[in-house]
Amino acid sequence: MTRSRLQVIFHVQSEAALIDARARAIAIEQSVEMPPAAIDDAAILRDIVGAVDGVADLGGGLFEVRIALAAATVGNDAGQLLNMAFGNTSLHDDAVLRDVILPAELEEGFGGPRHGLAGLRQRFGGTHRAFTCSALKPQGLTADRLADLAERFARGRLDFIKDDHGIADQAYAPFAERVPAIAAAVRRAVQASGHPTRYLPSLSGDLEQMHRQVRLARNEGLDTVLIAPMVAGVATLQALVRAWPEVAFFAHPTLGGAARIVPELLIGKLFRLFGADAVIFPNFGGRFGYSQDTCRRLAHNATAPNPRLRASVPVPAGGMTVERVPEILDFYGTDVMLLLGGSLLEARERLTEATTAFTDAVARHGRG
Amino acid sequence: MTRSRLQVIFHVQSEAALIDARARAIAIEQSVEMPPAAIDDAAILRDIVGAVDGVADLGGGLFEVRIALAAATVGNDAGQLLNMAFGNTSLHDDAVLRDVILPAELEEGFGGPRHGLAGLRQRFGGTHRAFTCSALKPQGLTADRLADLAERFARGRLDFIKDDHGIADQAYAPFAERVPAIAAAVRRAVQASGHPTRYLPSLSGDLEQMHRQVRLARNEGLDTVLIAPMVAGVATLQALVRAWPEVAFFAHPTLGGAARIVPELLIGKLFRLFGADAVIFPNFGGRFGYSQDTCRRLAHNATAPNPRLRASVPVPAGGMTVERVPEILDFYGTDVMLLLGGSLLEARERLTEATTAFTDAVARHGRG
Repeated sequence: MTRSRLQVIFHVQSEAALIDARARAIAIEQSVEMPPAAIDDAAILRDIVGAVDGVADLGGGLFEVRIALAAATVGNDAGQLLNMAFGNTSLHDDAVLRDVILPAELEEGFGGPRHGLAGLRQRFGGTHRAFTCSALKPQGLTADRLADLAERFARGRLDFIKDDHGIADQAYAPFAERVPAIAAAVRRAVQASGHPTRYLPSLSGDLEQMHRQVRLARNEGLDTVLIAPMVAGVATLQALVRAWPEVAFFAHPTLGGAARIVPELLIGKLFRLFGADAVIFPNFGGRFGYSQDTCRRLAHNATAPNPRLRASVPVPAGGMTVERVPEILDFYGTDVMLLLGGSLLEARERLTEATTAFTDAVARHGRG
Repeated sequence: MTRSRLQVIFHVQSEAALIDARARAIAIEQSVEMPPAAIDDAAILRDIVGAVDGVADLGGGLFEVRIALAAATVGNDAGQLLNMAFGNTSLHDDAVLRDVILPAELEEGFGGPRHGLAGLRQRFGGTHRAFTCSALKPQGLTADRLADLAERFARGRLDFIKDDHGIADQAYAPFAERVPAIAAAVRRAVQASGHPTRYLPSLSGDLEQMHRQVRLARNEGLDTVLIAPMVAGVATLQALVRAWPEVAFFAHPTLGGAARIVPELLIGKLFRLFGADAVIFPNFGGRFGYSQDTCRRLAHNATAPNPRLRASVPVPAGGMTVERVPEILDFYGTDVMLLLGGSLLEARERLTEATTAFTDAVARHGRG
């Protein structure tokens, strides 16, 4: 069996006298989950049992613990990677998963985004500016009302219009009715605007239902979809990415419970690894509590050059306004997609004008 | 659209002066996710926007917040239920999901376990004692070694033998090789013991792979499997339960991150709702930090009489020993399954004898 290892990094609250034993307990919990004394196979003791690679005192009763795990325990299964990295340890209150360092073979096995930042840029003539995005809301609207909203957004020349992540396959706007209606509305607007706006339906249910949804979307000429990996299961994302190479996948952070897996790891690094072309996350200064540092690290993880993985597009979102566009672009640069939702929808009958002001602000940035 | 509502209950850390606004913000976040002022549809404002049903001061800056959400936003999609109940709010540090109160139509739509406690009892001649269970470990063993281990466990007359939840489809013991070998070994032991021991393979990967795995298990005569709903995605569990009515499903808590969704809700109530016939959880006094109260509430949620849902079997596990059997049975009663893993495996060459001591202790309890 291969000796290749991945490294999993935790922050652990502990008394100093107990941290070495706690680190060893985590290494066992995340690998063989039984007393090593009861293992009589030398290869398993050497290759499979987790090893403590290091313990560092961070002060204030907090320790960084590095655990090495056998890559062979993961294979190329996204769910199994989360299971090995954090599975049972997520049930303990004292540990937060901080990072996962993968060997090249695992990165190659997963493969990351099939389109990513560069592929999405190509869809818009290779533009170098930041991308723009908004969301269809509120849920409860009929397919026709959502289509009307999408058409007005698209006339404002957005790059991407996504379903709100709460929009699934509800009786008031079933997927099979909603998606053709919205796709047709966006096609009409694109014809008028000349801008190749993409509509992203939100996938829901199980993998088989999602396959049917993607097939329907493809039949409507769509090439981009939205998925919530922590709701769907990361293996579901992985399966869809493999099955639909021509489709770009946006990852929604819902149910990310980011207090226990730090968001720069879960959203920035792992969603990219599993193939998300764009990763949506709560921006600093909006209605979520992410700090500037968290957002900077998350965007870095999503885009950092990697010979094996395409860059994902970081998509800060959550309570942003047009007024903040320059500040946000100064912060992230242009390898980013800005997602404004509620603050555009508040314009109500002036939606297309507000959207145009948004897309203009992004287009203008850095020019003057 | 139906006016039926589900109620979602959070514990929220807040200053007293801010809690009403925070409660309203959660109600909006978990429903329309946009400013109500920008919604011009009266039916949506009335039926879809989340409502604050109550705020109670629990002292110490902690508040109980009850939010009512439209059942129509959930449909019968397990993933969508978690998305609506906790999706974006899981990204906030201040809120813990405490409970979900479902209307009858949602319970009927999900349907809960297809076998459950009573169905599993029937498989063992309608026995009234507690069930017994152990786990095949460590991962890294070959299929033949795991089969040998299973045979020795089964000769000790266990009811259930499950793959360790870390055992997936790894190269050192692929599912297609491991499951037939172990199933054959357990059949041999059952022939010798006369006790109808069940072997539960652990499902991994995506839904399509899991369907193939269940099919293979069925071909080997198996009727019980193990799944980790938070790794696989709860919609994956739901799809399998619907597709394989003759199979019983055990839910593993891995990646349950129970600090943010209280375990009695996630494991006891929701896994049951979605169809798990038995729910594994860390017992108090073992190597996880669950309290007696948490375990009592979890077992209660899994088994409480419900005209629409069969009872699931509570399966306390995690660092238990034969010596604790009487104490644990006194605590849970007999509607329970005891899962001992490492403490049996430590017996090494005396595994069958240690297992027999375990199954005898359960059989004896309450008799004298």
